[in-house]
Amino acid sequence: MSTWFTRRRPAVELPRLSPRTPPATVRVDLHEVMPDLLPYLGQAAYLQLEQFQTLSRVAADTDSLAAKEVVSGAAGLALSKHQGIIAEIRRRGDEPAEVMRPFAEEIEGFRALLVGSDWRETLLAALMTGGLLDDFFIRLAGGLPGDVGPRIAHLLGSDSGQEGLLEVLRGEIAADAQLGSRLAMWGRRLVGDTLLVARSALHLSGNRADEERIEPIFTELIAAHTRRMDALGLTA
Amino acid sequence: MSTWFTRRRPAVELPRLSPRTPPATVRVDLHEVMPDLLPYLGQAAYLQLEQFQTLSRVAADTDSLAAKEVVSGAAGLALSKHQGIIAEIRRRGDEPAEVMRPFAEEIEGFRALLVGSDWRETLLAALMTGGLLDDFFIRLAGGLPGDVGPRIAHLLGSDSGQEGLLEVLRGEIAADAQLGSRLAMWGRRLVGDTLLVARSALHLSGNRADEERIEPIFTELIAAHTRRMDALGLTA
Repeated sequence: MSTWFTRRRPAVELPRLSPRTPPATVRVDLHEVMPDLLPYLGQAAYLQLEQFQTLSRVAADTDSLAAKEVVSGAAGLALSKHQGIIAEIRRRGDEPAEVMRPFAEEIEGFRALLVGSDWRETLLAALMTGGLLDDFFIRLAGGLPGDVGPRIAHLLGSDSGQEGLLEVLRGEIAADAQLGSRLAMWGRRLVGDTLLVARSALHLSGNRADEERIEPIFTELIAAHTRRMDALGLTA
Repeated sequence: MSTWFTRRRPAVELPRLSPRTPPATVRVDLHEVMPDLLPYLGQAAYLQLEQFQTLSRVAADTDSLAAKEVVSGAAGLALSKHQGIIAEIRRRGDEPAEVMRPFAEEIEGFRALLVGSDWRETLLAALMTGGLLDDFFIRLAGGLPGDVGPRIAHLLGSDSGQEGLLEVLRGEIAADAQLGSRLAMWGRRLVGDTLLVARSALHLSGNRADEERIEPIFTELIAAHTRRMDALGLTA
């Protein structure tokens, strides 16, 4: 499961994904590595904007009216989540553009990576990275101060239209014998960069204690990712 | 006001826009030229989808986070209108993709024309064509059978976020001495094609009576277009 990961970016210290890692129910103390509230909101808001941008591009690029319908609907749901987080930032008296700005370059760079050679690849990228990063930010929300955490977790956990997107991709895979293996490869290319975006949200000192602290979270994220790829009949 | 129009597409018979045309309050009997309900809904739904696609492209293309915010919000409003019309089609037991399909080629071709050399041009195109076509479809809604007309007119007449879009463009024009005249030219290039899309919704026999019947409507549409360009300090 971890080979692509260590192979891809050997220079960056990444969470080790050993098969001995305990199951997903383990409680992890995120206190030491939690981002502050505003950066958390800024990054989460920008990631939903990224998801909106990626999905609306897919909606525009496909010729299938049925796919346009499903994908534009999912884009609208990402936009609503983005606007919900923006409202949370405004409620605190902060300026959303200022709070998001520190993440613009990283996330726009990330978004550029998600654009595949056709709309099906871009759609898989949106599904995969959106699912993984939503899971991650929901998980982090538990460490936020006050009552904002549950509100954000509820918002991020609300419908993303993923079922419809999976349905569209399953239909495409069934209709094109070559597509499945191409998408499986494409998914493997993207997961490393997605995990790096997640990792960038954390205050990591680079010491072994921090790495051990976050390892179970990343193991969970990858397990959920694998289940999503399975749901498409693709090997993660 | 009509020179560009007759100059641009001399081969196509277009509504004559004489300066003697009576003012906009004149009552026009659209009965003879009204589209049937389903084609009306299909074309109106696809045009909102086009507006969503064009605006979300602008949101993705601009680097300004403040503009991204305003433009993605307007894209979301167009998507909501699209979804509202789709719901109306479903309520009648029809399949939205089937009902929209006859308009796909024309409107996707139209959408390709709206993509300018930068996001400001594309944004002007969205504002201008969205405003004009919304006005037109609201006007036509009065001729629909049953209670669907008022519902659609209300939906199309609800907030499109145009004020915010105007604000963004005004800021861009104020900051760039060359932009105003470039946008004015760009707007003139697009208005003919936009009126042709509107015209395509009507059952026109090509006789003089039909042309005289619809002329006041097109005069109104162009007057409203001119006011929108004025609001940007641009010559229509």
